[in-house]
Amino acid sequence: MYFNGQFVPETEARLSIYDSALMFGDMVFEMTRSFNRVQFKLREHLDRLYASIKMVRIPIEMSVDEMEKVVCDTIQANRECFAEDDEHRVMIDVSRGLLSIYTGMVGVAPGPNVIIAVFPLRWTVAGMGELFDIGINAVIPAQRAIPAELLDPKIKNRSRLHYLMANIQVSNYEGRNNWALLLDPDGFVAEGTGDNVFIVCRGEIVTPEPRNILRGISRAYVLEELGPQLGIAVAERNIDRYDVVTADEAFMTGTPFSILPVTALDGQAIGNGRPGPVTQALIERWGRNVGVDIPGQIKAWDASRADAAEGPSPYAFRAKR
Amino acid sequence: MYFNGQFVPETEARLSIYDSALMFGDMVFEMTRSFNRVQFKLREHLDRLYASIKMVRIPIEMSVDEMEKVVCDTIQANRECFAEDDEHRVMIDVSRGLLSIYTGMVGVAPGPNVIIAVFPLRWTVAGMGELFDIGINAVIPAQRAIPAELLDPKIKNRSRLHYLMANIQVSNYEGRNNWALLLDPDGFVAEGTGDNVFIVCRGEIVTPEPRNILRGISRAYVLEELGPQLGIAVAERNIDRYDVVTADEAFMTGTPFSILPVTALDGQAIGNGRPGPVTQALIERWGRNVGVDIPGQIKAWDASRADAAEGPSPYAFRAKR
Amino acid sequence: MYFNGQFVPETEARLSIYDSALMFGDMVFEMTRSFNRVQFKLREHLDRLYASIKMVRIPIEMSVDEMEKVVCDTIQANRECFAEDDEHRVMIDVSRGLLSIYTGMVGVAPGPNVIIAVFPLRWTVAGMGELFDIGINAVIPAQRAIPAELLDPKIKNRSRLHYLMANIQVSNYEGRNNWALLLDPDGFVAEGTGDNVFIVCRGEIVTPEPRNILRGISRAYVLEELGPQLGIAVAERNIDRYDVVTADEAFMTGTPFSILPVTALDGQAIGNGRPGPVTQALIERWGRNVGVDIPGQIKAWDASRADAAEGPSPYAFRAKR
Amino acid sequence: MYFNGQFVPETEARLSIYDSALMFGDMVFEMTRSFNRVQFKLREHLDRLYASIKMVRIPIEMSVDEMEKVVCDTIQANRECFAEDDEHRVMIDVSRGLLSIYTGMVGVAPGPNVIIAVFPLRWTVAGMGELFDIGINAVIPAQRAIPAELLDPKIKNRSRLHYLMANIQVSNYEGRNNWALLLDPDGFVAEGTGDNVFIVCRGEIVTPEPRNILRGISRAYVLEELGPQLGIAVAERNIDRYDVVTADEAFMTGTPFSILPVTALDGQAIGNGRPGPVTQALIERWGRNVGVDIPGQIKAWDASRADAAEGPSPYAFRAKR
Amino acid sequence: MYFNGQFVPETEARLSIYDSALMFGDMVFEMTRSFNRVQFKLREHLDRLYASIKMVRIPIEMSVDEMEKVVCDTIQANRECFAEDDEHRVMIDVSRGLLSIYTGMVGVAPGPNVIIAVFPLRWTVAGMGELFDIGINAVIPAQRAIPAELLDPKIKNRSRLHYLMANIQVSNYEGRNNWALLLDPDGFVAEGTGDNVFIVCRGEIVTPEPRNILRGISRAYVLEELGPQLGIAVAERNIDRYDVVTADEAFMTGTPFSILPVTALDGQAIGNGRPGPVTQALIERWGRNVGVDIPGQIKAWDASRADAAEGPSPYAFRAKR
Amino acid sequence: MYFNGQFVPETEARLSIYDSALMFGDMVFEMTRSFNRVQFKLREHLDRLYASIKMVRIPIEMSVDEMEKVVCDTIQANRECFAEDDEHRVMIDVSRGLLSIYTGMVGVAPGPNVIIAVFPLRWTVAGMGELFDIGINAVIPAQRAIPAELLDPKIKNRSRLHYLMANIQVSNYEGRNNWALLLDPDGFVAEGTGDNVFIVCRGEIVTPEPRNILRGISRAYVLEELGPQLGIAVAERNIDRYDVVTADEAFMTGTPFSILPVTALDGQAIGNGRPGPVTQALIERWGRNVGVDIPGQIKAWDASRADAAEGPSPYAFRAKR
Repeated sequence: MYFNGQFVPETEARLSIYDSALMFGDMVFEMTRSFNRVQFKLREHLDRLYASIKMVRIPIEMSVDEMEKVVCDTIQANRECFAEDDEHRVMIDVSRGLLSIYTGMVGVAPGPNVIIAVFPLRWTVAGMGELFDIGINAVIPAQRAIPAELLDPKIKNRSRLHYLMANIQVSNYEGRNNWALLLDPDGFVAEGTGDNVFIVCRGEIVTPEPRNILRGISRAYVLEELGPQLGIAVAERNIDRYDVVTADEAFMTGTPFSILPVTALDGQAIGNGRPGPVTQALIERWGRNVGVDIPGQIKAWDASRADAAEGPSPYAFRAKR
Repeated sequence: MYFNGQFVPETEARLSIYDSALMFGDMVFEMTRSFNRVQFKLREHLDRLYASIKMVRIPIEMSVDEMEKVVCDTIQANRECFAEDDEHRVMIDVSRGLLSIYTGMVGVAPGPNVIIAVFPLRWTVAGMGELFDIGINAVIPAQRAIPAELLDPKIKNRSRLHYLMANIQVSNYEGRNNWALLLDPDGFVAEGTGDNVFIVCRGEIVTPEPRNILRGISRAYVLEELGPQLGIAVAERNIDRYDVVTADEAFMTGTPFSILPVTALDGQAIGNGRPGPVTQALIERWGRNVGVDIPGQIKAWDASRADAAEGPSPYAFRAKR
Repeated sequence: MYFNGQFVPETEARLSIYDSALMFGDMVFEMTRSFNRVQFKLREHLDRLYASIKMVRIPIEMSVDEMEKVVCDTIQANRECFAEDDEHRVMIDVSRGLLSIYTGMVGVAPGPNVIIAVFPLRWTVAGMGELFDIGINAVIPAQRAIPAELLDPKIKNRSRLHYLMANIQVSNYEGRNNWALLLDPDGFVAEGTGDNVFIVCRGEIVTPEPRNILRGISRAYVLEELGPQLGIAVAERNIDRYDVVTADEAFMTGTPFSILPVTALDGQAIGNGRPGPVTQALIERWGRNVGVDIPGQIKAWDASRADAAEGPSPYAFRAKR
Repeated sequence: MYFNGQFVPETEARLSIYDSALMFGDMVFEMTRSFNRVQFKLREHLDRLYASIKMVRIPIEMSVDEMEKVVCDTIQANRECFAEDDEHRVMIDVSRGLLSIYTGMVGVAPGPNVIIAVFPLRWTVAGMGELFDIGINAVIPAQRAIPAELLDPKIKNRSRLHYLMANIQVSNYEGRNNWALLLDPDGFVAEGTGDNVFIVCRGEIVTPEPRNILRGISRAYVLEELGPQLGIAVAERNIDRYDVVTADEAFMTGTPFSILPVTALDGQAIGNGRPGPVTQALIERWGRNVGVDIPGQIKAWDASRADAAEGPSPYAFRAKR
Repeated sequence: MYFNGQFVPETEARLSIYDSALMFGDMVFEMTRSFNRVQFKLREHLDRLYASIKMVRIPIEMSVDEMEKVVCDTIQANRECFAEDDEHRVMIDVSRGLLSIYTGMVGVAPGPNVIIAVFPLRWTVAGMGELFDIGINAVIPAQRAIPAELLDPKIKNRSRLHYLMANIQVSNYEGRNNWALLLDPDGFVAEGTGDNVFIVCRGEIVTPEPRNILRGISRAYVLEELGPQLGIAVAERNIDRYDVVTADEAFMTGTPFSILPVTALDGQAIGNGRPGPVTQALIERWGRNVGVDIPGQIKAWDASRADAAEGPSPYAFRAKR
Repeated sequence: MYFNGQFVPETEARLSIYDSALMFGDMVFEMTRSFNRVQFKLREHLDRLYASIKMVRIPIEMSVDEMEKVVCDTIQANRECFAEDDEHRVMIDVSRGLLSIYTGMVGVAPGPNVIIAVFPLRWTVAGMGELFDIGINAVIPAQRAIPAELLDPKIKNRSRLHYLMANIQVSNYEGRNNWALLLDPDGFVAEGTGDNVFIVCRGEIVTPEPRNILRGISRAYVLEELGPQLGIAVAERNIDRYDVVTADEAFMTGTPFSILPVTALDGQAIGNGRPGPVTQALIERWGRNVGVDIPGQIKAWDASRADAAEGPSPYAFRAKR
């Protein structure tokens, strides 16, 4: 694991409790994945990371090019730990570092921390295989998204306890395919707690305006590449509960799983209650573009994993994007 | 330092990057202080900690009585590290622990983390001595407080990047006594980024309704003990910028410094621009109650500290309450 | 009149006071009209009815195809009651039925109610003839539209006392051509209390985004058919009072009257204060498409109706769309 | 059943589908109960009814004194239908009557309708007996209360589909003691869908400010009579989720059941998770004042009712107050 | 007329079009009145003026004592122009003065302007006499008050075009006793466009919280002096439309007329639709305190004024407070 | 200077303190400029002026054609006062005139006032020359824009004290190139206090939706003429702080200076912190279209002006658009 210029064992990648990250949730991050062990849209993730760093004004000295190199080096350094059928999941954390009042007091150097970890993607997507078939039941909890003017979700940051609160609220519902779908304070559909949402309506793919949401890399891939490749119109528009309930199809996007169908909202079937043809075409096309059977790979990991039977807690596996 | 049942050296008190605290800002905390090395309102702090734990649903097993004992043990264990004129600052962090998807994957035990650190109070209040004389210039930044319905500030939690953003905005102002004073989204005065605010108006002490703010222990001490002891009326009411500008006096409360005068808002003098008589009476009375000359103690620490001359960064020393 | 599978006389088409419709305003509905005794956009109305049913979760068993057949049967059953120059107005009400606690207590069967009535369109449009010439004076009352997140107007439902309140407020204005035009809580123009609003500006037809409004069938006909047929650009955009006051023309759409000019806002002339050329072209084209002189037909009914002189109460005739 | 000046059989107490009540949810109402067959606070209910009538501007001619007499006559006329251990539940509905455009068209007289029904209270409270022991789990749904400025809940009206929506959302939770507790758009706790909510905190009984709620008769009885009788302080204040979770006790009030303990919020125990001493003292005192063992009476009805075992649907029995 | 240190004829008291007052509505003011030619609460008005000056940061050098003296001098200088039965109305305007970019360009000196005019009170209250008998019909227009956080009405300033817009909207209603009553954006009753509003409910005098309103001197006189003198409880609380409609009485206060009954809201009678006993007691007591029959004096002026018959325009006479 | 039909010396162009403009900020206006002494977009300014007049309902009799002629006459009448290198800045003020209660009382005629002044543009742009090179640092103050529903900024009016408050807040920042950039209450970027804002992002020019802003003539020129002429895509979209910080370039438009680069937001560089190529191309093209080197002309005026060294007050020169 990369930690401020060195490779250290994972158990040593720990942050001081006096770090701003732990004092204020003052840390930005990215998480990527590979397809066939080739990082996907790494540069887009890093550009977004640097936008986050700029927004929160962490005075980092490393350039984006240097960062890209370090990420690759970290993957290389860990390559032997991975099984043949693994994909690389990379997590990059950047914190402001020790709060200045503790400088010189505790045995930690001041200045920003850069931490890069690589681990098998299967950790994250464990148990998601069946969702490609049955779809997600999106549940709108009482917890709302925080609007961008107060704490901007476009900054991929770690001050997001409210996402966890949403997940906990949703875990009170019956069923194992419930994922939170947050409304923003205006009542518009915003996003999941680690994923973007889309509907398909009258042949058009529609997703919320990029305001009170993270602007997902997977989201952009659907809008700018997959939609055009398939000749399907795409649009960013304000949508609300009515639009989702009456849509023909719906799906969510996220880095670890790419695309998952959403087949119900608050327990009510969307369309005919099964993954729709547009959703399936998008999944298929994405897989073709990167040379991976995306649902098949995740299902295979599910099957090979001992503890998959019990399944992850309902709010554990949706923490990353 | 207490860490999940053991005492460890400070440099080992670090949290895994896979901990929910670092993934979601999912950690609650308290910070206390002593007067003459006697903890002040420790039980009130712990009761509030357990309210925070309940609100975010961390499944902790330790009872509040056990917690109180451990805190005392930790202070005892560190007693010899403290200078004679030090006061004990205690920080208690409780996180949900490792995200469940990483359980068994990384070398960290699952379940909540309890971390208790003790360090000299002077670290926190360094450079504040002069503020007892010149007072704080409260500055209202563009950054607003997040309302309780979205992320409740009554929960003393670590997802509060927006406080840091407010501090950074205020650091763009000239002068070294600028502290942020946040409005809530309704336009009411809420709180500082680590302190509660009061005005004195027509002989009455008024502080914002306890809604979009942390319900400070020091705040309660003024309202429930100091005010009555001095025979001064107290009230909780919605107040706005006009109320502060036209007040006779204003002050802030916080655990490390107790009470500091606020002598200006956005650079405009409040009252005659000097610490007011009610403010001074409250500070004096507090000191008498606990047997400490509060301003004198802090000024003495300032004087003895080598690096006090340059002063802390404007948003560093106001991170605790 | 169709009532849960039977045809009954009109005086028997009454709902129990224990019905959810009367307990909670828990009923959805549609109202259609014919041109030359041919139903217009019947299927579109029924699809919207089923969207409403889905949104409020009434567990109806009748399919949309069955519903369409029953509507046609009901028209057929009433055909002899109609004069030659009448048009058929159909009202379809679907309620959840008896509240479950009263099941078995009162002499009414449980389960959803479906009621279909047919009556002459002239009942609804009585007295509107002159509005094709002088236009409506749209009045913005203090009453605002309820936003979709709280009670969605896209669901055509019967919990809409606030529409009536708006109508009553407007009835306090002088003049007989005043119709309410509601702002939504964001301050945008939403809709009338039974009609959608459009402006014409720089050659473009603009209507509010389909959010806090009923998505009218007539509205869609203008946007998707009439506009393109006439080669006029159409758009859905947020508009406010300024946009209406400074527009070149304005009009409202509704099922019973199709299109009516709006010639003033709060008493101030829009454009030159007379029905505009785009509005008139739309009315003419609509009439041509369906083979009816729409203004002429309504004026003829006015003339033949004894009580037309006094006119309907200002909030009576605008209850349907 | 009283219907516009006559007593009619229950099956004939039906409203025309052209009535404003069914067209716009344009009906106001009250529901009362007796203790030992003596109506409780009847005059207060009627005064509130007339306030509702005034707010929606129904031009009723009957005076409140006449209304009171008719209610008593209706009870008298039904007296023989009641079992000895029944209590009288009275429902009074007042609608504006036939929409004016249908006047003379359909076989229904114009003008306001007054309908008064009397039925056994046990219909309403069936299955609630155990709630006195286990308490209610208050659940905050995504559906919010409509604020008073848009559709005032202080008017006891029938346009309240959103209450039903809240109940349906809550019915998705596991457990049979879940009742909806709505937040208003400001994020404050408002009310249940047929009940007012109170918390007990530091020896004080607190209930939301009477703004975005129905001002319940039972609520007033607690604030103005029971509290003072027991020497317990009462207050109306804005409260939020935090206040409820950290309260010592909580309860709900409603006409049919008087007072029910609330022992959890979103599944988290309030206080020790059992009905609290203040709540129990209030229930006991109320019963003593009216000479009825309130929980005992309801439990007795439960036991004698055949279908109590299966229980009412979760949103059926909470429609009245 | 006093103008920056000199007395000038009224026709010369004009501001340059390059003055900040005319460029930005950047002027604060006060208007007072005498009773029996003795200024009433002059010091309170001047204190509020200086609060306004402070809020908008006009760098005035004149002290409040000097200002008081100049006001008295100005009255003295004009004394001979007044009829025996006149009262002195004083208007004090303070503007920031010439915008700095025009300094030296146009023939006007830079720096703040202080203008003091004295004129007969009868100009302002002409035609109000009958309102003491029939009362005001308060009308809630679509125009809302601007909240304090955006442009604080507690600052008595000249940027208040929206008040005029409210008056114009209300002038569209029939009747000559219509006065605007503004809601604030939260939906609470705020104030008139030159007056504060009160209701009397269950023996208590209630007025809106002093937030989105001017804190009237007359308002304070009722709350702090008249109420206590008459032994009537007073309170500041959020009130809404329901509270006003269901109140026993209502009234408005303003400097020129002191107190006027409000007998209707949007045309609906408040209480019995006539000035209420508490209102009348307040008017009588005020008059007794200052030795003037307040209604009688205004009615006498009405009678003696030639143009009183036609009456002032509906938004002219309500511009002052 | 033109004043209600006559030409008067500048020192006589003063408004009575009883004028509605000074009582309510009730005045609308326009300010234009020439290029090479040819008025630019004069008709567009006048059309907007008449839209403002209509919105505030000033009953003016002069037609827009007459107004245009009077403006030209006023320029002609002042032509000799201008230096050869001057440009003509025209200011047109229209007020409602004397409040009706003062009619006949003071020596001023009733009815609307029309005032037209012509002065050298250099007064307004003094000191702006260097901004073409270093760019503006846009600062977001705590003061928010007033939304259109409360006081519409699309009406170019003089009730805008809040703009001045924003400027004063920003003047507390260090540096001399700070200009205020207001957010609206939704948190979207609105406008400066006398200018519109644009960003350049991925080759597209984007500016806020024309809702809570003045719809600038220069803004329209960029969107409708310069953008198309240069083949650059333009769009109106909601944008927020994130969009500005992460943009490639930004600029502001305003009548006196045409276009100025914005090179930082709250002190953080936008793009590379220097005026961007799209911005420069727009400035260059505009200059070419009108035959003036726009930055050069302003810099020349700077150089020739004695007092340019000290610079204008930070909120003086940004009052016009």
